[in-house]
Amino acid sequence: MSSADFLSKLAQLLPIAQVYTDPVDCYAYAYDNSRIFHAPIAVVFPLNTTEVQAVIKLCNAHKVPVVPRGRGTGTAGGSVPEAGGVALSLERMNKIISVDPDNRMAIIEPGVLNQELQDAIKGVGFFWPPDPSSAAYCSIGGNLATCAAGPHAVKYGVARDHVLGLKAVTGNGDIIKTGCYTSKGVVGYDLTRLLVGSEGTLAVIVEATLKLTPLPKHTGGITAEFADTASCARAIAAIMAQPYTPSALEFLDNGALNLIRGRHKNLLPENARAYLMIEVDGAQQEIIEATQAILQACQVDGLIEAKPAEDTKALWAARKALSPLLKDIAPKKINEDIAVPVSHLPELLTGLEKLAAQYKISNVNFGHAGNGNIHVNLLVNPDNADEMKRAYECLDDVFSLVLSLQGTLSGEHGVGMAKRPFISREIDETTINLMKAVKLTFDPNNILNPGKLFPK
Amino acid sequence: MSSADFLSKLAQLLPIAQVYTDPVDCYAYAYDNSRIFHAPIAVVFPLNTTEVQAVIKLCNAHKVPVVPRGRGTGTAGGSVPEAGGVALSLERMNKIISVDPDNRMAIIEPGVLNQELQDAIKGVGFFWPPDPSSAAYCSIGGNLATCAAGPHAVKYGVARDHVLGLKAVTGNGDIIKTGCYTSKGVVGYDLTRLLVGSEGTLAVIVEATLKLTPLPKHTGGITAEFADTASCARAIAAIMAQPYTPSALEFLDNGALNLIRGRHKNLLPENARAYLMIEVDGAQQEIIEATQAILQACQVDGLIEAKPAEDTKALWAARKALSPLLKDIAPKKINEDIAVPVSHLPELLTGLEKLAAQYKISNVNFGHAGNGNIHVNLLVNPDNADEMKRAYECLDDVFSLVLSLQGTLSGEHGVGMAKRPFISREIDETTINLMKAVKLTFDPNNILNPGKLFPK
Repeated sequence: MSSADFLSKLAQLLPIAQVYTDPVDCYAYAYDNSRIFHAPIAVVFPLNTTEVQAVIKLCNAHKVPVVPRGRGTGTAGGSVPEAGGVALSLERMNKIISVDPDNRMAIIEPGVLNQELQDAIKGVGFFWPPDPSSAAYCSIGGNLATCAAGPHAVKYGVARDHVLGLKAVTGNGDIIKTGCYTSKGVVGYDLTRLLVGSEGTLAVIVEATLKLTPLPKHTGGITAEFADTASCARAIAAIMAQPYTPSALEFLDNGALNLIRGRHKNLLPENARAYLMIEVDGAQQEIIEATQAILQACQVDGLIEAKPAEDTKALWAARKALSPLLKDIAPKKINEDIAVPVSHLPELLTGLEKLAAQYKISNVNFGHAGNGNIHVNLLVNPDNADEMKRAYECLDDVFSLVLSLQGTLSGEHGVGMAKRPFISREIDETTINLMKAVKLTFDPNNILNPGKLFPK
Repeated sequence: MSSADFLSKLAQLLPIAQVYTDPVDCYAYAYDNSRIFHAPIAVVFPLNTTEVQAVIKLCNAHKVPVVPRGRGTGTAGGSVPEAGGVALSLERMNKIISVDPDNRMAIIEPGVLNQELQDAIKGVGFFWPPDPSSAAYCSIGGNLATCAAGPHAVKYGVARDHVLGLKAVTGNGDIIKTGCYTSKGVVGYDLTRLLVGSEGTLAVIVEATLKLTPLPKHTGGITAEFADTASCARAIAAIMAQPYTPSALEFLDNGALNLIRGRHKNLLPENARAYLMIEVDGAQQEIIEATQAILQACQVDGLIEAKPAEDTKALWAARKALSPLLKDIAPKKINEDIAVPVSHLPELLTGLEKLAAQYKISNVNFGHAGNGNIHVNLLVNPDNADEMKRAYECLDDVFSLVLSLQGTLSGEHGVGMAKRPFISREIDETTINLMKAVKLTFDPNNILNPGKLFPK
């Protein structure tokens, strides 16, 4: 069937306002925050499960790729229509179906924004822990597809820890229901967590039952400045080795500090070369005890000052602004998201500095240090071929370093398109082949986000 | 190939002390705590991954069932060799490979007992939250295969929440590695949690990387007595609707109380008809605040008394002894493990009482009320055909009630053999067929614990 015939069939499935086929309209659905660009042949905006199913069945019958999409805030190209086909935007399936404080649950459609959910449950005393920087405009469906996390994961875990059940449409258009509406359940395989983090390659999530967490009673802050990265890394390891788990433990290297200093005068101490923003929460006394224990753990050679922070709001705002600031100073950043066991952070962070010097690549590192999850940013000019070559060689060595330290290539961003060339270095061929076989049970014609997540 | 030929090949794979073929020796591997009995043709005791792989490859080549087994403490028949074949006992793969307090992780072989792990990590300030009643003699491998939980799941979650990675052997003898050695990781599908709770039907776990949790600083207790089950259920719902999550919230109905009263004089108040044993943990002040909030939530019509408990050790010992006590008074118990959203516990518990009266079946209910997870025990005499008939009719109505209350048929025991006749009432055919297809990707010849977990 010709593309025109297919599009005409597609147009018959949904009201006219729910199908874009004009390339101009489709443009905004051709990229995500990775800035990789591949245009879809159409964008559809289903309003319910039946419409999702109809689109998938049509695409499956004609072997046309379907690329599910939240708000396109991913950084790894997971929602980019690499193989063309139909972009399936869930943005109009955005109802909060129910909030059930008595059972600490909510049922939502995938297009609900993270922030919308937080706003809806805060009044009844709850939050949903995944909190990526893009929380204000990323969708819960996208959070689930990537198993998103954020600063609070160090204490509260990631998306997979906060979902109880899903409704989803597989690649052949079957509607499946996974999990349960109870806080415990072991009937059948755990397809819920198999779908979480599967980047839209197994099924399209059309409804999710989320577990809600009571808001902490109180919150406290600590900041710590260090003369160098190595001492800061030792403090991170020491903080995580004592029993009080911080609710956030964010690391900024000197490059990141300089970016913030350029924009926010007098916010940060001048002599610090590495910095920790730490949050603790719980009962008032727990905060006092945790603060004391964490200040103690910060007492390493190289500490300039560690102190309780009166008002951390400005600092958090600056931390959240870091990603956009990075774009300002380099036309392109190669943005990685590696994680290592926290005890290996000293080797990782000093190793990253050495590699940046060796390859002469500007390098800004920051991130969720409590999880050993560091956002490594190589700042490059794509027009400089030599720099780009050095950057990719450097990246290769970064990944070797990470894997040698028992780490993983992605802590929270996912594989998408960007990390496909590297993942066979982390996952052996046997296990990858098994994952491919699992995909085909959900999606026999390989139409759901084809190619994503697997080695290139 | 004849059975004798197969056994002779099996005997060549392993040293003589690691293969039982004498039916007398095999007897102890023919049942679990469900008391369902099916003898294996042999029992093997591999010492390492290579030996597990060799056994599975041989069995796969000859399409002989392999039934992996921890310590046989399951209650649903999950490790019973229903289809004959080889019982693969992991009990001799019992090394704690590493304890890594700095990263809050441990790597273990599957045969390590839950209690052995707890003992090994307590000294460095940690525990592993899953704590089934059988913790002293059940294996971690079994805990993972069933996604085990226990009283502390209400605050700390279940087995799947406390495992980071696995090494496993699939049904065709492939060795796979899942997950990572970091607290966050999103590379590839989450096969880790797919294997957890899969009851040995997908792969045999030969190594697990576990997430450890810091021991709570302090622990406090509360007991609450009620004049009837309905008022107690309302108190449970009220406790879970306020923000302080107890670290355990155990319910005992009058039948359970009477069993304990018969064995432990003066431990329990005489007039209580329903009882809560509540534990809180954390900082001292948190315990004070939580205790206050929970005592307040207990103030429902029908409360006799709610008070802080000085010493909860004797109570916990009595609670743990309940399951064996149940065996004393009835030749057979039909032991169910249903869960409902906590807000529906009042309807569930009063409904259970009505059904017991209607079908004239003695009924003892207790369990992890904070998760809405109730162990329903129908006490029956298998020699009384009329009683057995009434019991199974009652059970059918119990399941209907549970599902009508948005519940699940098993909160923590799993499906095994015992619940197979019922699970299609909870999971739709499409989703079950997908699960079956997933199984075949791991186990193409359906040799791993064949039949288990799926509808009969």
